[in-house]
Amino acid sequence: MNKNNANFAPLTPVGFLRRAAETCPDKIAVIYGEQRYNYKQFYQRTCRLASALKKRGINRGDTVAVIASNIPAMLEAHYGVPMLGAVLNPLNIQLDSKTISFILQHGEAKVLITDCSLSPRIQQALAMIENPPLVIDIKDNNCKDGELLGELDYEALLAEGDEDCDFSEPQDEWQSACLLYTSGTTGNPKGVVYDHRGAYLNALGNMTSMGLNQNSIYLWSLPMFHCNGWTFTWAVTAACATHICLRKVDTAVIYQLIKKHTVTHMCGAPIVMNMLVNAADDIKTKFDHTVELATGGAAPSSTVINSMEKIGFRITHLYGMTESFGPSLVCSWKQEWSELDADERVGKMARQGIRYVTSEKVKIAHPDTLQEQPWDGHTVGELMLGGNTIMKGYLKNTQATDEAFRGGWLHTGDLGVRHPDGYIEIKDRSKDVIISGGENISSLEVEQALYKHPKILEAAVVAKPHDKWGESPCAFVTLKQGEVASSEDIINFCRDELAHFKIPRTVVFGPLEKTATGKIQKFLLRQQAKELE
Amino acid sequence: MNKNNANFAPLTPVGFLRRAAETCPDKIAVIYGEQRYNYKQFYQRTCRLASALKKRGINRGDTVAVIASNIPAMLEAHYGVPMLGAVLNPLNIQLDSKTISFILQHGEAKVLITDCSLSPRIQQALAMIENPPLVIDIKDNNCKDGELLGELDYEALLAEGDEDCDFSEPQDEWQSACLLYTSGTTGNPKGVVYDHRGAYLNALGNMTSMGLNQNSIYLWSLPMFHCNGWTFTWAVTAACATHICLRKVDTAVIYQLIKKHTVTHMCGAPIVMNMLVNAADDIKTKFDHTVELATGGAAPSSTVINSMEKIGFRITHLYGMTESFGPSLVCSWKQEWSELDADERVGKMARQGIRYVTSEKVKIAHPDTLQEQPWDGHTVGELMLGGNTIMKGYLKNTQATDEAFRGGWLHTGDLGVRHPDGYIEIKDRSKDVIISGGENISSLEVEQALYKHPKILEAAVVAKPHDKWGESPCAFVTLKQGEVASSEDIINFCRDELAHFKIPRTVVFGPLEKTATGKIQKFLLRQQAKELE
Repeated sequence: MNKNNANFAPLTPVGFLRRAAETCPDKIAVIYGEQRYNYKQFYQRTCRLASALKKRGINRGDTVAVIASNIPAMLEAHYGVPMLGAVLNPLNIQLDSKTISFILQHGEAKVLITDCSLSPRIQQALAMIENPPLVIDIKDNNCKDGELLGELDYEALLAEGDEDCDFSEPQDEWQSACLLYTSGTTGNPKGVVYDHRGAYLNALGNMTSMGLNQNSIYLWSLPMFHCNGWTFTWAVTAACATHICLRKVDTAVIYQLIKKHTVTHMCGAPIVMNMLVNAADDIKTKFDHTVELATGGAAPSSTVINSMEKIGFRITHLYGMTESFGPSLVCSWKQEWSELDADERVGKMARQGIRYVTSEKVKIAHPDTLQEQPWDGHTVGELMLGGNTIMKGYLKNTQATDEAFRGGWLHTGDLGVRHPDGYIEIKDRSKDVIISGGENISSLEVEQALYKHPKILEAAVVAKPHDKWGESPCAFVTLKQGEVASSEDIINFCRDELAHFKIPRTVVFGPLEKTATGKIQKFLLRQQAKELE
Repeated sequence: MNKNNANFAPLTPVGFLRRAAETCPDKIAVIYGEQRYNYKQFYQRTCRLASALKKRGINRGDTVAVIASNIPAMLEAHYGVPMLGAVLNPLNIQLDSKTISFILQHGEAKVLITDCSLSPRIQQALAMIENPPLVIDIKDNNCKDGELLGELDYEALLAEGDEDCDFSEPQDEWQSACLLYTSGTTGNPKGVVYDHRGAYLNALGNMTSMGLNQNSIYLWSLPMFHCNGWTFTWAVTAACATHICLRKVDTAVIYQLIKKHTVTHMCGAPIVMNMLVNAADDIKTKFDHTVELATGGAAPSSTVINSMEKIGFRITHLYGMTESFGPSLVCSWKQEWSELDADERVGKMARQGIRYVTSEKVKIAHPDTLQEQPWDGHTVGELMLGGNTIMKGYLKNTQATDEAFRGGWLHTGDLGVRHPDGYIEIKDRSKDVIISGGENISSLEVEQALYKHPKILEAAVVAKPHDKWGESPCAFVTLKQGEVASSEDIINFCRDELAHFKIPRTVVFGPLEKTATGKIQKFLLRQQAKELE
């Protein structure tokens, strides 16, 4: 009894769009400003993209880079490129031209689809490349600046294609679908490769974890270039739900769209929640329904969770990384938590949680022996993941791949504990732990204490070299608009929250350096801390 | 970049139970009368089953048959057997001893786990087998009759096993997981073989189609022996929901359990809905919530849908067959239907619908040319399916397998149309079409007309040989309790509902012969019709 065309098909996220176009062709698939595409049109546009690229000589395994905001063309690339068997390489729009040129060369992009608003930086990047890729400009009425770089604009390319194409890729579900560069804090970025199977499964995982269905309305507040929008680029389509595109994370616009389109789901780094909570009252358009908001990257603080709930958001905490197709863990809500008091409840919710139904294994283990740690809520170990929703490996970097997969597990570099109820809680990145007088201090714990301070908008804590103790905690904080506080205020506040040795000895005020995805760049803060007198 | 233990794992429905035991060990997994198992205990019992069978010499690829009602042991077998790499062969509990002996021999069962209530028939079946399998009796306080047949009872077998076992099966997700015999209406039953991959995917398909989540409570009103309970045996566990076992479909008990446990989901053939609707008022325990009820096998009539909704059920129509792991199509609800009047709305709901997100392809096509028919709502063709949730094939029957998969599609033998909105509607089984004077008459259409008659409980229409017209429609009807009607009443009623040539010429009153799964046995009615004067 063999596999045949009747009983076997390679898993691919492209199939979700084929199905949506077949089963709900008239359903609104994409909303962008005043634009509307239904699923039939969405699919036809991706077919045009695939067949136009094919005519331009792009074949299975070729890399097609795209650098764009959360606009329809970006979403279309998530189907049109893998449909052809080619590899989609979405770039972070905030990268500098040197890094962009590195990625285009390392990934051997044959085509670059680029948002016109980025043209100065892209032009610089292309100038550094000996054999630059074919450049396709996305013209967009919503971006007035920026000149066209290439021979061809995106709509003209689509016009070359055939809306009735029918590609039978992938031939094998292990085939590469995407290439995503991690914003490495040191050295060159590494190219994480995704296969079709993993993308398909993680999308189904999102669908079940977040309860997406055909009535869902998803707002694109999370960058699509970030792990393919945590694979929601495909999950929303799998659910036959509606995508609302968004060029720029603007708090006022987000509130208006939530109200206007009855948004049901969105994702965002903690910075997005901070922006939503701390927005001026006059731009907080009120809405009557509940918005499911998935967040990740850092544990949401109790203050933020409580404030968000009051506005109408229900927060779900996810955990993942580029190497795991975005989310792999979800802090799945337990009915009995409803009976806990607010602080306890938020304490449960701030944990990273349990594995997705599509994620095969997870453990908190000793980083060297790989021995699993007890589920006692306090023995720290490294978080390790495994299963079909883990990357194939790093492109052209066998050493880094082997290291990441040592012993048959993906080593995340995050340190955490496992509670008796099976829920995982991250305590810190292994490189962010502060060792003071031989004691480990979790920078996260200190940050959580700082976030309780009513005047603090954002906080990050890193190690500062210390003559006597080796290292000491150094806090970088941004105050809320109009607020004033001194180092002493902050340090005194921490006395009630933290053990003595964990209290920051230095407090630096000002904005925090962040990556394009809203991650605070601790390595820069660490340098700054080192240079402080 | 190769597959390794960090980035690849064979898909298997057994993994859902491992995850539930890991992530919600204390959650109630199984309720049966006064018995309760949490997910940790459920998993431990399946580990015991697997390791005990292993000790008794059962290995990868061996067949383990089970014949039991919807009791915990039956559910446990769905994990304990495939966990070991062995093949689970659930038998229909209503089969006669001759068929049971045929299946045990054809499937080469090494073990038979049998419900004590069935012992007389099983004893006869075993007597016909030269080398009978090892027999394990399930003792159950809820079944008093029946003697023990084997050397060993089920709990004693579990006691031989190890609750901490850790099997790494399947090695390959294409490995066989289950063997299910179709209740062939002629000739010997055929053994449909399921692989682990298909079982995993169809379970996820159910989860998303029916909106199962960790708060769901699933009542086992559908036999687990029927396509592994349409793969809900695994879907409910994937959702970390609760299974409520049920030895016997008893209307009063079902209503009590719905109320007592706030049942959220159940499945059932139309006969189950008929029983629920037509139950006496005093056994219809009232409940305040909505129960999602998935049905399949025949389109629910508007009368039944309306009555069910009044009681508190929301009906979803599914379509599938043993060869497709149970459900492959779902009549997914569209928001705009809410605005239709009752009859139109029910007309939409009674269709078989669109493919599951995990189902790869479907078409209504000409049975010979395989050419797809237009989506016009009236051109009839054969329903054909394909994808990962289609069987591997029929055991030891290459000819039937090749025939079923001709041209790379599963030929369902069902005739239907596709509406302009992409929804499929079955008109008839190909062999159930009545050809009268050269005109095709859909027996289903005539049945739907009959179901509108206020006194009719059940109806089935078959072809009766006719000298002049070739065939004519012959109706078999069961009246509701206490009701009286004549053939003329019924025929006159049909005049308002059907074209003249479709009106039954003969009406036969009495109970209808059914299979164990509630399917009306039309081949028996056809014989009866032939023998009528």
